[in-house]
Amino acid sequence: MTLTTDFGLTDSYVAEMKGRILGLCPDAVLVDISHQVPPGDIAAGAFILGRAAGAFPPGTVHLAVVDPGVGGSRPALAAATPDGFAVGPDNGLLAPLLGEARLVRLAMDPQAMPPASATFHGRDLFAPAAAHLAAGTPLEQLGEPLDTYQQLPARGAACSVLHVDHFGNCVTDIDPKEVPAGGDWQVLAGSHTITRRVTAYHEAATDEPVLLQGSDGRIEIAIRDGRAAATLKLAVGQTLTVESNLSRPPRREKIR
Amino acid sequence: MTLTTDFGLTDSYVAEMKGRILGLCPDAVLVDISHQVPPGDIAAGAFILGRAAGAFPPGTVHLAVVDPGVGGSRPALAAATPDGFAVGPDNGLLAPLLGEARLVRLAMDPQAMPPASATFHGRDLFAPAAAHLAAGTPLEQLGEPLDTYQQLPARGAACSVLHVDHFGNCVTDIDPKEVPAGGDWQVLAGSHTITRRVTAYHEAATDEPVLLQGSDGRIEIAIRDGRAAATLKLAVGQTLTVESNLSRPPRREKIR
Amino acid sequence: MTLTTDFGLTDSYVAEMKGRILGLCPDAVLVDISHQVPPGDIAAGAFILGRAAGAFPPGTVHLAVVDPGVGGSRPALAAATPDGFAVGPDNGLLAPLLGEARLVRLAMDPQAMPPASATFHGRDLFAPAAAHLAAGTPLEQLGEPLDTYQQLPARGAACSVLHVDHFGNCVTDIDPKEVPAGGDWQVLAGSHTITRRVTAYHEAATDEPVLLQGSDGRIEIAIRDGRAAATLKLAVGQTLTVESNLSRPPRREKIR
Repeated sequence: MTLTTDFGLTDSYVAEMKGRILGLCPDAVLVDISHQVPPGDIAAGAFILGRAAGAFPPGTVHLAVVDPGVGGSRPALAAATPDGFAVGPDNGLLAPLLGEARLVRLAMDPQAMPPASATFHGRDLFAPAAAHLAAGTPLEQLGEPLDTYQQLPARGAACSVLHVDHFGNCVTDIDPKEVPAGGDWQVLAGSHTITRRVTAYHEAATDEPVLLQGSDGRIEIAIRDGRAAATLKLAVGQTLTVESNLSRPPRREKIR
Repeated sequence: MTLTTDFGLTDSYVAEMKGRILGLCPDAVLVDISHQVPPGDIAAGAFILGRAAGAFPPGTVHLAVVDPGVGGSRPALAAATPDGFAVGPDNGLLAPLLGEARLVRLAMDPQAMPPASATFHGRDLFAPAAAHLAAGTPLEQLGEPLDTYQQLPARGAACSVLHVDHFGNCVTDIDPKEVPAGGDWQVLAGSHTITRRVTAYHEAATDEPVLLQGSDGRIEIAIRDGRAAATLKLAVGQTLTVESNLSRPPRREKIR
Repeated sequence: MTLTTDFGLTDSYVAEMKGRILGLCPDAVLVDISHQVPPGDIAAGAFILGRAAGAFPPGTVHLAVVDPGVGGSRPALAAATPDGFAVGPDNGLLAPLLGEARLVRLAMDPQAMPPASATFHGRDLFAPAAAHLAAGTPLEQLGEPLDTYQQLPARGAACSVLHVDHFGNCVTDIDPKEVPAGGDWQVLAGSHTITRRVTAYHEAATDEPVLLQGSDGRIEIAIRDGRAAATLKLAVGQTLTVESNLSRPPRREKIR
C-alpha cells in the first residue's frame, strides 16, 4: 500500500493512519510516496501520485489524502482500477488513476466507537477502507456504487511548468514530439530561451538550460549541477511557449 | 513497533536503530511516528507519542528517544502497559503511556562487544530492548523492577497551547465542555478573541479563527485554509483565557 | 535492504524505487538511511552510508544513489561485501563498503520495455539489481566482473570536520588516541581552542565546547544542549589543528 498526503513528517498524523491500517491488515506493506504535498494543493498531490503509481506492482492500494474539504460535502471514494486500488477524497486527487475504474462512495459508520472524527477522515475513514481492500475485501462491500468522479481543473491550452522537483528541474507538459533533439524549435521560458535538448544531464554545458525527457516521459527544463527553477525564475504554473518550424531567423540574440 | 525521536531525517541515527532492531527481531514491523521532535524537547515528544499510540493495535512496542541526559544518571526504562510496551529514557517522555504500567530499569551490558556508546543509547540500549520485547521476551527478563517513573512537569492551572501542527492549528488543553457550540463563552488568545466553535474546518468563514474539536478529542484553534498560529501569533505555551457564562456584555469590540 | 539517496522526501522518486523493488522482491524489508544527502554530494552520502551499514545484520543489501553523472560514462556497480551487498553508481559513494568486495558492472537491458530512463538509473537499473540480490540471485548473474572501483578523493593530511549532524555536533577525523581525556593537547577549531574531552554530553558545562567520542568511534566537537557548528562557526571541510605534548605554555589566553 502507498500513502500520499499533505500531513508533513513532524506530526503523528501519518503514523496514526498506519496504526489503523496495521490493526486491520497486519501484513500490509506500507510505502510512503510523499507527505510533503503543499497543504491543500490537490493538483500537486495528484501529480505526485499519478507519476509514482506506475512503478508499483499490480494490485497495489494507493491511499491519498489531500483534503481541504474534509467534513464537508465532497464524497469519499474507493476505486478498483486496472492496476490496483485507490482510496481518498473525491476532489480530483485520485483522478490520474481513475480512467477505467469502478467506484464506490465510502460512508462513515455512525455506529463506530469511538465516533469518527469530522476532521481526520484519513485515519477514520480512508485508512480503514484501504486496509480492507489490502486484506482482500471486495470493493463493492465498502460502499454504494458511484458513477462519476471529480476531475482536476483543466489546464489552459498553453504549455506550462507542472512541477518543480527536489533538484530544481521543471517538469512541463511540452509534447516531446514538438521539441526533437536537433530540431528547429525554441522554448520561451520566462525571460530565457532554450534551444537544445539532451538525453542526460551530463551532456549539457555548465549553466546551459536544456530540455530533456525525464523518467516519467515528460519534458523537463534542467541545468546540469544547478537548479533550473531558481536560475531561470520558473515556478509551477509558469506559461511556456514552444515556437516550431521557425521560418524567420531564430531569435538567437535572446539566448543566454 | 513505532519509533519517535528528535534525531531528524538527515543523519543515519534512526536507520542505525532500525538495523539493530532487525538484527534481533527480523519480523519487526517498523512505523515512524516522528523524528522531527524539536531537539531535546521532551514535552513535545511526549505529546506526539501520547497522541499517536492510541491508533496502534494492542501489543505494539513504542520506542521513543528524546534524551538530552543520555549517559547521565537518568534511568532507562522498559514498560508493559495495558495496550502494549514502551521503551526509552525515564525523563517524562514515556509518561503519557505509563499510567498502569509495570516497569523495569534497563542496564547496559558491560560485557557487550563492541562496548555500548555513552552517547547513543537509542541504538545500543533502547533499540535492543524494544526488539527483544517485539520478539516476545518477557519484560521482567530485561531488567530490575522499578517502582516509579519521571512525570512530565505539571502545567499551570491556566489553559495553554500544547502543540502547533503542520497546518498551523493550535492544539490546546481547553476543556471541550467549557466551550460548547453556541454557548456563552469567549476564548482570549493573545490579542484575539474567539467566540465560535465549529465541527469541521470548512464551516468557518475564511480568515475567521474558530474552535473545533480535533481528531484526538482536544480543542484546537484553527483558521480555514490558513495557519492559525502564524495569523494569531500563537506558539506552544501561550496562555489562553476562557471566559464562560458572561454576565456582562460580551467584549464584542475586541473581536477581529 | 537500505536506501540512501539525495532525492529528498517531497518527490516520488524514492517511492518509485521502492515500488520497483517490491515488484521484484515482495518480501524485501526496506529501511531508509537518508534521502537528505545534499544534492550531488557523493562524499556526504558515502559518510552516512559507511556509518550506518555497520548497524545492519549480515546479508543486508545497501542501495545508494547520489549520482550526478547519471547517463554518462561512470560504471554502475553491484558488490558482494564481507557483510552483505552494495549497489549504486561507481563514483565513490559505495567506497566505504567495498574494501574486500567482489564487483560486477551492471548494464542496462536494451530489450527492456519500457526502455530504461537515461536520467533515473536509481529506479531503472539499481533498484532492480538490488531487488534481485535481496531475492537471492547470485551477484555474478547481474553483470561482468569488475576489478576496481572509484575511491573517494583523498583528504589532505590535516584533520577536518567530516560531517555536521542534526544536533550541530561536528564529527571529525581526529585520532582518538591523540586527544586522551586529561591529556596534554589542544584542538584549534576556527577561532576557538578546545582542551577538554568528556565521555557524555551532560559532563560538559553549558556553552563549553568539548571533544567526545561519538557512537561511530569518531571524535566529535560538541556543546551540551547547544549547536557546536553554529556557535563555533564550523562547517564540513573546516581544517582542525591538534597540538599535542605541548612543550611551551599552553595558549590558555585563546580559550573561550
